[in-house]
Amino acid sequence: MKKLPLLFLLSAFSLSAQSNDEQVLKDIYKLSLTNAKCYSWLDDLSNKIGPRLSGSENAQKAVEYTKKQLETLGLDKVYLQELMVPKWVRGEKETASIQDGKTKTNVPVCALGMSIATSKKGLTANVIEVHGIKELAELGEDKIKGKIVFYNRPMDPENIETFRSYGGCVDQRFAGAKEAAKFGAVGVIVRSMNLRLDDLPHTGTMSYGDLPKGEYIPAAAISTNGAELLSKTLAKNPDTKFFLKQSCEQFEDVVSYNVVGQIEGSEHPERIMTVGGHLDSWDLADGSHDDGAGVVQGMEVMHILRQLNYRPKNTLRVVLFMNEENGGRGGDKYNELAQTNNENHIFALESDSGGFSPRGFSFECNDANLKKMQSFTALFEPYLIHSFVKGHGGSDISPLQSKNMIKAGLKPDSQRYFDYHHAANDRFDAINKRELELGAATMASLMYLVDQKGIED
Amino acid sequence: MKKLPLLFLLSAFSLSAQSNDEQVLKDIYKLSLTNAKCYSWLDDLSNKIGPRLSGSENAQKAVEYTKKQLETLGLDKVYLQELMVPKWVRGEKETASIQDGKTKTNVPVCALGMSIATSKKGLTANVIEVHGIKELAELGEDKIKGKIVFYNRPMDPENIETFRSYGGCVDQRFAGAKEAAKFGAVGVIVRSMNLRLDDLPHTGTMSYGDLPKGEYIPAAAISTNGAELLSKTLAKNPDTKFFLKQSCEQFEDVVSYNVVGQIEGSEHPERIMTVGGHLDSWDLADGSHDDGAGVVQGMEVMHILRQLNYRPKNTLRVVLFMNEENGGRGGDKYNELAQTNNENHIFALESDSGGFSPRGFSFECNDANLKKMQSFTALFEPYLIHSFVKGHGGSDISPLQSKNMIKAGLKPDSQRYFDYHHAANDRFDAINKRELELGAATMASLMYLVDQKGIED
Repeated sequence: MKKLPLLFLLSAFSLSAQSNDEQVLKDIYKLSLTNAKCYSWLDDLSNKIGPRLSGSENAQKAVEYTKKQLETLGLDKVYLQELMVPKWVRGEKETASIQDGKTKTNVPVCALGMSIATSKKGLTANVIEVHGIKELAELGEDKIKGKIVFYNRPMDPENIETFRSYGGCVDQRFAGAKEAAKFGAVGVIVRSMNLRLDDLPHTGTMSYGDLPKGEYIPAAAISTNGAELLSKTLAKNPDTKFFLKQSCEQFEDVVSYNVVGQIEGSEHPERIMTVGGHLDSWDLADGSHDDGAGVVQGMEVMHILRQLNYRPKNTLRVVLFMNEENGGRGGDKYNELAQTNNENHIFALESDSGGFSPRGFSFECNDANLKKMQSFTALFEPYLIHSFVKGHGGSDISPLQSKNMIKAGLKPDSQRYFDYHHAANDRFDAINKRELELGAATMASLMYLVDQKGIED
Repeated sequence: MKKLPLLFLLSAFSLSAQSNDEQVLKDIYKLSLTNAKCYSWLDDLSNKIGPRLSGSENAQKAVEYTKKQLETLGLDKVYLQELMVPKWVRGEKETASIQDGKTKTNVPVCALGMSIATSKKGLTANVIEVHGIKELAELGEDKIKGKIVFYNRPMDPENIETFRSYGGCVDQRFAGAKEAAKFGAVGVIVRSMNLRLDDLPHTGTMSYGDLPKGEYIPAAAISTNGAELLSKTLAKNPDTKFFLKQSCEQFEDVVSYNVVGQIEGSEHPERIMTVGGHLDSWDLADGSHDDGAGVVQGMEVMHILRQLNYRPKNTLRVVLFMNEENGGRGGDKYNELAQTNNENHIFALESDSGGFSPRGFSFECNDANLKKMQSFTALFEPYLIHSFVKGHGGSDISPLQSKNMIKAGLKPDSQRYFDYHHAANDRFDAINKRELELGAATMASLMYLVDQKGIED
């Protein structure tokens, strides 16, 4: 460890374990609220670099920027993991309109990520509205062939956690085109994954699965207001037509990188704990919430622990994954290398749910470890962190499979997340500095506690 | 009660008490997230009416609008409480500049509410920077006389709850002018009560207390960026001058109203429970968070309970107070009438901390009642409401003094509140519909539980 003072200088080190933990968390939150770098890092990532879709020049700039910043923190090692990523380019701004007899109304759309283009003239067809993939089989080829399938199942407003509503809808976006193509559809339009009514189309990845290339059909998202209008127009005039023009293109895979920074463990250097988010973002905005926030919070965890001169028992790594949005290749590569090197991961923490006020964590682990994590609850109460529940860790860390390991996801307040998710307004001005810093402090606190207490075998 | 069906139709009424309560809360949250009116009411209040400073035409429009809306809900009684309110008018937009030798830099300022104007030419004077009222006595009249006192103590970023930081600073705004005048100051400039650095001045009320009228001096807020610049400039050049021009004016008091809507209790009509917020706002924006949100959430509580055909044991009142911002006359009048009519208030709930994601409540009550309120915690956990703590109820309900009564304040997430508080950006677009609705549901749930379980004597 470079430039590390010999003494382990946490304040109040002589106190009992519990009150020492209390004091360490106090120091962590104080540092994060008064001396963090995460907000200015995010300002750079969002405003100096901008959108960072895999394979783009900006994604490469983000690799270089974050590596350089990590190198200033006095970690033991900062390095890149090379991988190949897909390169999909949106091209010209999409256009679309609802054609109700002679009345033509333009509506906001965007191509779904990985979709093919329409022809240069665009695609015009009749529309069949459905509320889910299952309906396709009920309708049958007769009613679908030659038409654009319009998936219009909205996110369920009744769930308290909005990610649950997303999970209940996103199959339309991901697999809607593949399934509709099987019934002879010529394109799909998907209602944006957004709980509010507005004029922003929300992109996101889709897949043609094992469909033969010749059967691919174009897929686009429509704003929620646009979806409401299309649905109303169709109800009045079933012969309504839809026009869509998009010119996106899939190129050959290109080289890219995960960025990793490491502090070696003093007692169990072979036990690895990771923290991080994903470097790539969608192309419509700078991706400040998804997932610029997670990237800079992961970096901030290292910054805070270094400022405290904390010497971890286990090896701590910040991992900034590439290509979460349209491939997950960074998570796969990280896991592949972990397996090749026979690494033992005991803990992986991901922040990929936005930079909003932190509320707790979800844990993917066995019951003994869940209980252990929940035993920390009281320590977090002064910081208004209450929710320690079983649940998904995160998509970048999901390939990791070390025995008994804990995968954890930061859970920020989810109410506003889908107002911005994959849309043109996911920008730096939607970030509150304190909320971002509180998230980083909450992550650093959990990393500290797990490093100190270990996990259950 | 008008048009109320004879049956008490809460779903699952036959279940046990605890699981019935669970079901009622489920119904309340579901209704609020799917069928609430609060967001569209707030849209009207904010975008059709706008800023609602006491004594203004808009404040009167808000009285009429909310009364009319309450009359659509099928309550037993909707009425006004007449009162006199101060009428302070900002006048022309203020101007200010920092004058460092020959360099003049304009900075964003606004008059503090209830301040006097400068002369028509404006005020130019040297500046003395302080970090609190106490410093005035240390400096003494020699160093203050003839100068503008610049209060520059920032809000403390270390507190998790931002209202605590506000409480640690706001004496500068409220009493800064009165105290500085005693040492011969000619004006005061106060750093805006804002945790972030930006260009918005935040107004708010101040008072000259018992100072003779001839000794009043003008008081204005400066944006946090402006305060930083002024401080830096003074450090380099102590002879820096400050120019301020404002033309605000205090008029005679005018008639205004509290708006009250009531459902009579079926078992204890003499026991009163209130819920609400304040109708007036500052004049720089439409006051969507402060306190349009509290107003429409209070109204929504009645709307939800009426939709459930809930027949309360106690008398429930929504009270929309006038003049919280610069006088508190509405709260005083409500209390005066309650005393005159010998009313027994057992519970009063206020929402005046913004329309953000609800986190819990603060309770002003005896220990037995605090314990009782905390016994509801488990019922709220599915809605991510965790914080049931001792604390301030709210300023409009603070005059009420019935024996053993509970005063409660809704506690939303506080991190973003002072980004908007009393500034030109406290507008409807800063409101998230779901967060507003979740707050209303949380309030309705507590009203239901207290109505059912009563309070401890």
